[in-house]
Amino acid sequence: MTNSTPQKSAGSEAEVTAAVLVIGDEILSGRTKDKNIGYIADYMTNIGIDLREVRIVPDVEDEIVDALNAMRARYTYVFTTGGIGPTHDDITADAVAKAFGVELYEDERIINAMLERMKPEDLNAARRRMARVPRGGDLVTNTVSRVPGFRIGNVIVMAGVPMIMQSMLDGVVPTLKTGIPLTMQAVEAEAPEGAYAAGLSAIAEAHPGLSIGSYPSYVDGKFRNQIVVRGRDPQEVATGVAEIEAMLVPLVAARNVG
Amino acid sequence: MTNSTPQKSAGSEAEVTAAVLVIGDEILSGRTKDKNIGYIADYMTNIGIDLREVRIVPDVEDEIVDALNAMRARYTYVFTTGGIGPTHDDITADAVAKAFGVELYEDERIINAMLERMKPEDLNAARRRMARVPRGGDLVTNTVSRVPGFRIGNVIVMAGVPMIMQSMLDGVVPTLKTGIPLTMQAVEAEAPEGAYAAGLSAIAEAHPGLSIGSYPSYVDGKFRNQIVVRGRDPQEVATGVAEIEAMLVPLVAARNVG
Repeated sequence: MTNSTPQKSAGSEAEVTAAVLVIGDEILSGRTKDKNIGYIADYMTNIGIDLREVRIVPDVEDEIVDALNAMRARYTYVFTTGGIGPTHDDITADAVAKAFGVELYEDERIINAMLERMKPEDLNAARRRMARVPRGGDLVTNTVSRVPGFRIGNVIVMAGVPMIMQSMLDGVVPTLKTGIPLTMQAVEAEAPEGAYAAGLSAIAEAHPGLSIGSYPSYVDGKFRNQIVVRGRDPQEVATGVAEIEAMLVPLVAARNVG
Repeated sequence: MTNSTPQKSAGSEAEVTAAVLVIGDEILSGRTKDKNIGYIADYMTNIGIDLREVRIVPDVEDEIVDALNAMRARYTYVFTTGGIGPTHDDITADAVAKAFGVELYEDERIINAMLERMKPEDLNAARRRMARVPRGGDLVTNTVSRVPGFRIGNVIVMAGVPMIMQSMLDGVVPTLKTGIPLTMQAVEAEAPEGAYAAGLSAIAEAHPGLSIGSYPSYVDGKFRNQIVVRGRDPQEVATGVAEIEAMLVPLVAARNVG
């Protein structure tokens, strides 16, 4: 067909995917415990974006560039955290510019925002580094410490400090395509995994539209198994949960007898 | 030189690297917050192994295989966590076998260990899945729930439940090459990052044997900057710290006056 009108982005229907790239030696050395991955994972699930992959890489330009290029080609969005401060180990902007094959420019809006908070003589070369944005990038607001993150193409570059990262995420998400949020329902399985694995597998196979997981954990000195059913169709999730509960009944009964 | 005696593994001198591959939809959906990455990072730092990369991938065989093959070619060791239980979403053993191009076999030692804890009629097909090990693999002990993990080549396959993973790590580490532990020393910088960035950069350039990072955080309503100096030579770390402290003195003094 010629002259067809371009499709409007399917918005809340298309499959929207994301990846997170955590940048920083301090996470890999154990010095800092990451708190951003779990936060972004919850956030994406709530807005219907499928988080598909996470990588943590050191403050090494080629590592950042390679990971970023691999991920931005595969997913709708890539969120990076870390490495956007004024010190020598903050090389994320340089790596993103290199990945996109563009130059960095000094953004006057950032310089002006910084001048509102400091004397001109304090705006030294190190601080000016924080005003550098790859050509073609847009700013991502930061209501906490003001110096913005940026977005270029499908890559969103955010701070590593959780409170600032969270502010930037709030700022950028309204500009993103989002999907149909997953409905998620959990069943407490009062039986060992090995007893219900076959039954659960059969239910999972019968419902390709559902993602069904079984998650053991160890809480207060006891193992606990939780079965989680996820899907975009709430009706199918409810059906899956009902089938799982029915499947568990005889197992739990047998266990209480034995 | 011919007929030279093979070098003993350099042990505590060679550079020993590692990566972690976290396997599980539940981490990517946010349902479970990973607690293993930070634990393994600390552990590796303490035994002188450089953790260089982490990836989190979903319960999808090809994703696991691709990540594993990329990582096992690059690092001395790859640790995986998750996906070794009895349910349909536990596909790590299958993926590892596929990555290495070998078959899975049922290990009698694991079957026997399971039979010590359950009646033969309870050892169903799902539970037998947990006894499968790729050909050429060795077992990794698990003092918590007994069913072992395994190691094949440079890949160590561990459970996702933190207490079990920790037991497996304790079990396997004595069999690994380890490096010279990093000496790490932190300096509280009572000055803004932008004020000391240039001075810190000069010190970092003068000491290529040191890894120097500046880490802002937000604690109790205040931003706090910590400079961390890492290196294998404790003397050089001490020198670096002394130079950083000297560099900070006038900045802190200026700040207290201003």
